[in-house]
Formats: sequence, C-alpha cells, structure tokens
Amino acid sequence: MVPTLSDTIVALSTPPGIGALAVVRLSGPDAVAITQALFSKKNLAAQPGHTLHYGTLRDPASGQILDEVVAALYRAPRSYTREDVVEISGHGSDFIVRQVLGALLRQGARLAEAGEFTKRAFLNGALDLAQAEAVADLIAADSALSHQVALNQLRGGFSDELRGLRAQLITFAALLELELDFGEEDVEFADRTGLMRLLTEVQGVVNGLLRSFELGNVIKNGITTVIAGRPNAGKSTLLNALLREERAIVSAIPGTTRDFIEDEVSIDGLRFRFVDTAGLRDNPADEVEAIGVQRTRQRIGQAALLLYLFDLTNMTPAEVRADLGEFTAAHPKLPVLLVGNKQDAATPAQLTAFTQLASALNSDSQLSTLFISAGQRLGLEELQDALLTQVRGAGLATTGAATIVTNVRHARALEAAAEHLGAVQQGLATGRGTELLAADLRHALGALGEITGDISSDDLLTSIFTQFCIGK
Amino acid sequence: MVPTLSDTIVALSTPPGIGALAVVRLSGPDAVAITQALFSKKNLAAQPGHTLHYGTLRDPASGQILDEVVAALYRAPRSYTREDVVEISGHGSDFIVRQVLGALLRQGARLAEAGEFTKRAFLNGALDLAQAEAVADLIAADSALSHQVALNQLRGGFSDELRGLRAQLITFAALLELELDFGEEDVEFADRTGLMRLLTEVQGVVNGLLRSFELGNVIKNGITTVIAGRPNAGKSTLLNALLREERAIVSAIPGTTRDFIEDEVSIDGLRFRFVDTAGLRDNPADEVEAIGVQRTRQRIGQAALLLYLFDLTNMTPAEVRADLGEFTAAHPKLPVLLVGNKQDAATPAQLTAFTQLASALNSDSQLSTLFISAGQRLGLEELQDALLTQVRGAGLATTGAATIVTNVRHARALEAAAEHLGAVQQGLATGRGTELLAADLRHALGALGEITGDISSDDLLTSIFTQFCIGK
Repeated sequence: MVPTLSDTIVALSTPPGIGALAVVRLSGPDAVAITQALFSKKNLAAQPGHTLHYGTLRDPASGQILDEVVAALYRAPRSYTREDVVEISGHGSDFIVRQVLGALLRQGARLAEAGEFTKRAFLNGALDLAQAEAVADLIAADSALSHQVALNQLRGGFSDELRGLRAQLITFAALLELELDFGEEDVEFADRTGLMRLLTEVQGVVNGLLRSFELGNVIKNGITTVIAGRPNAGKSTLLNALLREERAIVSAIPGTTRDFIEDEVSIDGLRFRFVDTAGLRDNPADEVEAIGVQRTRQRIGQAALLLYLFDLTNMTPAEVRADLGEFTAAHPKLPVLLVGNKQDAATPAQLTAFTQLASALNSDSQLSTLFISAGQRLGLEELQDALLTQVRGAGLATTGAATIVTNVRHARALEAAAEHLGAVQQGLATGRGTELLAADLRHALGALGEITGDISSDDLLTSIFTQFCIGK
Repeated sequence: MVPTLSDTIVALSTPPGIGALAVVRLSGPDAVAITQALFSKKNLAAQPGHTLHYGTLRDPASGQILDEVVAALYRAPRSYTREDVVEISGHGSDFIVRQVLGALLRQGARLAEAGEFTKRAFLNGALDLAQAEAVADLIAADSALSHQVALNQLRGGFSDELRGLRAQLITFAALLELELDFGEEDVEFADRTGLMRLLTEVQGVVNGLLRSFELGNVIKNGITTVIAGRPNAGKSTLLNALLREERAIVSAIPGTTRDFIEDEVSIDGLRFRFVDTAGLRDNPADEVEAIGVQRTRQRIGQAALLLYLFDLTNMTPAEVRADLGEFTAAHPKLPVLLVGNKQDAATPAQLTAFTQLASALNSDSQLSTLFISAGQRLGLEELQDALLTQVRGAGLATTGAATIVTNVRHARALEAAAEHLGAVQQGLATGRGTELLAADLRHALGALGEITGDISSDDLLTSIFTQFCIGK
C-alpha cells in the first residue's frame, strides 16, 4: 500500500445548493500556496495555523474576481488530515463554487475522491479505521441512538478495547513463534494456562460485541414494524397518530423534514419504520386488492416486529386468535404486538372478552396486548412503551453508553476472529502442535486488526472510503 | 425604526442535507458566551478574534456529547455583522444540526430570520442596502455576467457613484431650505446655474443606470429565445445540440447540474433560455396540435428573441418569407434570427436561392440569417455568435465592467428620482418658487436614498431581507 499523499486535494465540503455559506476545502502540502495564488490582501504563508483571513479570490488566469471569502488556515499536523488544510468559506452558490474549484484545479490541486480527506486522516494516523468509518455513520445518523453510537465509535469506542486485548494476544503469538524458531527443542515460552485465560476473556468481549451487532443494526437502520390487520381496523389512523407527534418535533426547523422517510418515528432514541399495509381479508374483492394482500404478507416477512391491529367493536376473540395463528405459523420467530383499537367505542362485554383473550395469549412471551383508541389518541404512550418493551424483549436492549457494533464489516471480522480464537482454544485443549496454534492465532489477530485498520489493504480502504460523500 | 440588536441570533448557514461539513452561525453580544455553554476544552472568551478552536459540543441540559467541532471566532466589529460572531463547523448531518441548534436556543439564542445576518450588517453600517441586496443576487447568480454584476454591486458598484452625486444635491437642498427660512427676504443662497449643471449631470447618471436595467434584467433572468419553425425543421435537434455543449461543461462537477433549468445555456457569460416549441403549421392535424400551435404563438409574444428555424431542403424562399411576414406583423419589435437547417443535405440550387433571400432580408437590421446543420453540429459557433450579436444589436451590450442595475426596486427608485429631478429642472427653467423646488428636490433625494438605504423603512427592510435564505 503506497498512499500518494504528495498532491493537494480539493472539494466542496458543504452540501451543494443555494445557501448562505459554501466551504471549499484543500488538504496537502500545497494547500496554502494554491490558495494564495487566488487570494489577495494577505500573505497566507506568513500566518500561523488556526487563524481566519478575510480576502478576495481572483482567478489568476482571467483576473476576474470570484468571491469575497474567509480562508481558515490549519497547519500540519494540527488539522483534520494532519496535513496543511485551508477551508475557503464563500457565498453559497453552485456557480461560484464551480468557478473557485475550477481556478484551484488550474493551480495544481486535484479533485478529492469520496472520503479522501478522512482517508488521509487515517493514513496519517489521526484516526483508526473504525473511527474513520464512524465519521460516515455520524453524518448519516438520524436518531439520537445512532448518533450516540457513531460518536462513541469516533471517540475511540471499541477500538481502544480491542486494541488492548489484541496487544496481549500479540505477545502470546510472539512467544509461540519463538517456540517455533527453536524447532525440535520442545521448549514452551508461552504460558498455556495464561493464554487460555486470555483467550476466554477475548472471546467474551468478541461475543459481546457480536451480540451488540443486532442492536447496532437496529439502531443504524431502524426497526421495521409492519402494521397489519383487517380492513378498517384503523391502521392508517394509527400511523398518522404515531407520525403526528414526530412531525411536530421535526418541523421545529423548517426545510429538514423533507429528507425524512415519512413513516419513521423516533421513540426514546430508537427509530421505528412503520409500514402501513393493505387490510388483510380472505376473500379480496378484486385482483388489485389480492395483489395488495399478497404484498402485505411479503412485507410481514421482512419485518422486525408485527403490530397486529384489530377493531374491538367488530371482531370476535376467535377471529383474532385465528389471524394470529396464521401469522405465527408463517413467522414463528416474529415478535407480535396485539393492539385492540376503538377502545372508546367498545362495550364492557367486548372489553371483557378481549381482556380474557389477552391474558390467555400473554402467557406466550412473544406476544403482548393492549387496547387503544387511535382516533381519540388514547393509549398511544402505552403503545410506544410496549413497542420498546417488545424490542428489548427481542434481545435489543438499548443502552446508549455501551459499546455497540453497527458496521457489517466489523461484525464479519468479529465472526472470523471468534472462529479462529475458538480454534486456538480447541487446539490448546486437545494439545495440538504449536505451529497450528500459531497459525490460528495469526488469523485471529488479522481479523481483529482489520477492524481498526492495523491490517488493511488498498481494496479494503477503497471499498470503505468510496461510501463517503465527496469533501469529507 | 428601532432595530433590536441586543439578542443573539443563530441559524444553519450551509445548505441543509448530508455533507462533510455544516456550519451553524451565531451573531450578537452573547454569541461567544452561548457557544461556551456547550463548548468544552477551551475558554473562548479569552481567545482573540479570527481564530479557530477545536472542541467538543455537549448539551448542558442532558450532558450528552453532540459533536466534535471547530469554532471560528470573530470579534466585533471585525465580523460580517460587525457583532461578535461564532461559526461552529461540525459534521454535516441534519440530525446533529437540529441537536446543536436546539441546545443553542435553550441557552438563549434566537433563531435568525431570513437574511437577518445581512440585515444586521446593514443596520450596523457594514454594507449599504444595495450592497446587502447584492449578497442575495450573488448567491443566486448562475452565469458569469450575473455573478460579476452582483459582485460589482457588493463591492460598492453604483452605490458609491450615487452617493457622491446625492451628497452634492443635499448641499443644494440645504441651501434651498435656508432660503425658505429667510422667508420673504428674497435671498438666493443656492446658485441656480450650478444647480442646473448638477441636475443635468445627475440626470445623465440616473438615465444611464435606468438604461442599464434592461441589460441587467437580461443578465439576471436570462434571454428567452423561442425556437420556432414548421414541423420537422430540426428545432429539438438544435436545442439538444445547443444544450449538449453546456451539459459537458456543467458535468465537470457532479451533482450541480440538477439545479439548472434544462434548456438554459450560458453563451459568453450571458444566459439564454431556449424554448423549443411545437411546429407551426396552418392546418393543424387535430385539436391537441392546434392548442400547441396557439401556445407557441403565445410564447413568441413573451420572447426577447425569436430563432426561426427552417429546413433548407424542403421550404421555398417564398414560404419562409411568408412565415417571417406573419411574425413581424404580430411582433414588429421582436429581433429575429433566421436560421436555415440541414445545410449539409441542401442542393447548391437551394443554397443559392436562400442566400439570395438572406441578402434581400438582411438589409432589414432586425434580421440576420445563417445556415447550419444541427444534426451534424455544423455552424453552431456561428449561431452562438449571431445570438450574441442580436442581443447586443437590441441595445443589450454586454460590458462586464460597467455599472449595471439588475434590481427592480432600484429601477423603480431611479425612475422616481428621474421624474422628480425633471420637475426640479423644469421648475428652475420656468422660475418656479423655492418652496416647490425644494419639495421636488427632497423627493428626488428620497428616491435616491432608498437605493442605498440612507432612507429606509421597516417595511422596506422586511420585504428585502425576507427574500434571503435563512442563515445569511
């Protein structure tokens, strides 16, 4: 891996479009000199780092003034990339940004690839790989928990934990390799009991991180919750009732709501993606409805949680039980929340009948029941609590402070590490030869090292950083 | 007008959306203190202006970390608004921006209204009103000329010129008012000959600026050029040929093209808005086509320029002449560019016939003729030159350096000034009483003062700054 860090890269670092400000960022050995070629009013080379300089940008080729700007100066190694960095803050117009970028490119800068600033930060040792990946997660975070998890990872997170354990493993690996060097002499430098103890500890951490991945995935991607039920059960009313709350919060800052998927709600920091579905009935009226019902059944298959909504006033407990039986037969592991709607309109006899059904069903741990009125907005808080309980009951405990793995790449590497560590453990137990133990340990170290980037390949780096936005 | 500048305003200053960076800007007496309430690692109050500070933002209410940021510090009066300004540069995520804005608001900042930063810059004397308006124009500029004109205006532009003349007029106005104070005594402090000379000079400048408005409008809003002609003349091919060039240039920076109206092309810095129209024929095949033809005729009425395209290989000079006669009868003042298409497929006889027609027609100054092949991309450069010549011939000379009025409000104020100055001139010529002269002069001064904001009302400021984006 021979990174080429000798050139100076440039990109627009703020989102494109009309705005008050646009920031064009340069990083590399010539960042200051290239900016200076356009910048008048001050000699930037003579200025210290971490300072701001007002000036006029002029295209040296045409002599035309491009913009009035402020140049923020960072001196290597005290910058994001640890290189010289200039951030040119100008008027937020795509036209001006194009002119400025064009002029900077003509002065010898190169347009940055996606994530190239962060890649340089990694290559120059400012961040490890897991931290670098957290930068992209942080930018994409759209709920309190995903934000906290990304920030935690950016600030060191499990990198630190893994690195400590890995350092201890490396010591053992070195001792094992030393034994191999002595060949036939049958010495044991590595204390097998100590190694076994360390392996158990590392396996515990790795398995804990692996278990956190299911939660991490939920935090990052949201919990797909399908709202199913017969026609006119009140599914859309419920969806609107759940969304209305969230919309009010989001609209506090105008213009941002558009970027959200309309049927997502954050409850207690967890993102629920509610899917309203076509009403299920056995004899669809026409072909279009039949397709709708078929699609509903498909979506239930992709759900993390099923909210089965029924109308307390026009269903019998037997019908509800039948519908549920159908779901659980098709998806035995899917957690189901059974919600009776139109509580306000139900007769005491109806409520009693369903309360009895609920207590009969609630013995099943996969199921919980509650009554609401979506139209009257009654019981919605209890419903949100029940949703959280279901999620936590499904092993997705929400502990913001804990170390959580959200990245598929990390999960795969942890799985590989767990497998190789297991092989070492088994090898120790069965008295396998040092050479095989050393090989398995090397593989485990490799897998762990991939997470933090202590071991990385060009391909890996490319696949990681091309998922970034340009300018980061 | 009592501006309330005692509170501290805050807004997102970069476009919303996912990006590497987002900048949240605060301005006002408590900008530093409010930032400090969230910002750890450094005492910002002890730092000098024009410096950058890396730190962690934490919500003091929840104790949760919000982001790792850089705070750019500007000290009054050395800032955009001439107040204390902090620009917090963090990760470009709408979620984080909402969290940060929320925490800053809870610390006592107020969400800025549209254009409020620039309004403060105006109220604090950093910019005059015409310069402040140029900020919005600069952000919206999307061609080289509109950009240059806005930048010129931002850098002083005609404000300086007007202010000098207005100062001289004010001297005369003061002398006239003095004469009124002396009432019956029939003194003349104001030199009538000198005043007449000055009025002539000011009128010359005002009329020059008014004349520039037509060009300014074209620069700001583009030149609507309708491409008309019979069916299959090659109009759409020509449009595509004209656009393809521009697309190639625009696509040099991915992601920016989308913001452009698809049928606009910048030629030599001037924006042409090409309108491809339904083919014109006398006997439309059906009602839908008839509506299309009717709409074409409507659009021609709104055009600044008509590009009449005809097929050299299947039209006769007489037919072309007839079509042209129809256009010029309906729109006698509309500049027309006559373009013969499919030059590559035309016979020598056809070319000769149309060359004769062209030389006969070209004696008419409103018309120019050329032959192209849109499909083969032949003669397109000549066509662009001809378009520019037509625009310039119509009095829309493109001189980037000249002082150009682009703002309707300025044009209206200049018209009012011209009218009142004319009244003063006429009053002087006819020996009207001092009182009436003074009143007309006051009105003229008022109109000129409105442009630079030396005279302004709350309503005027509100109507100007609400057109800005939030955060500027």
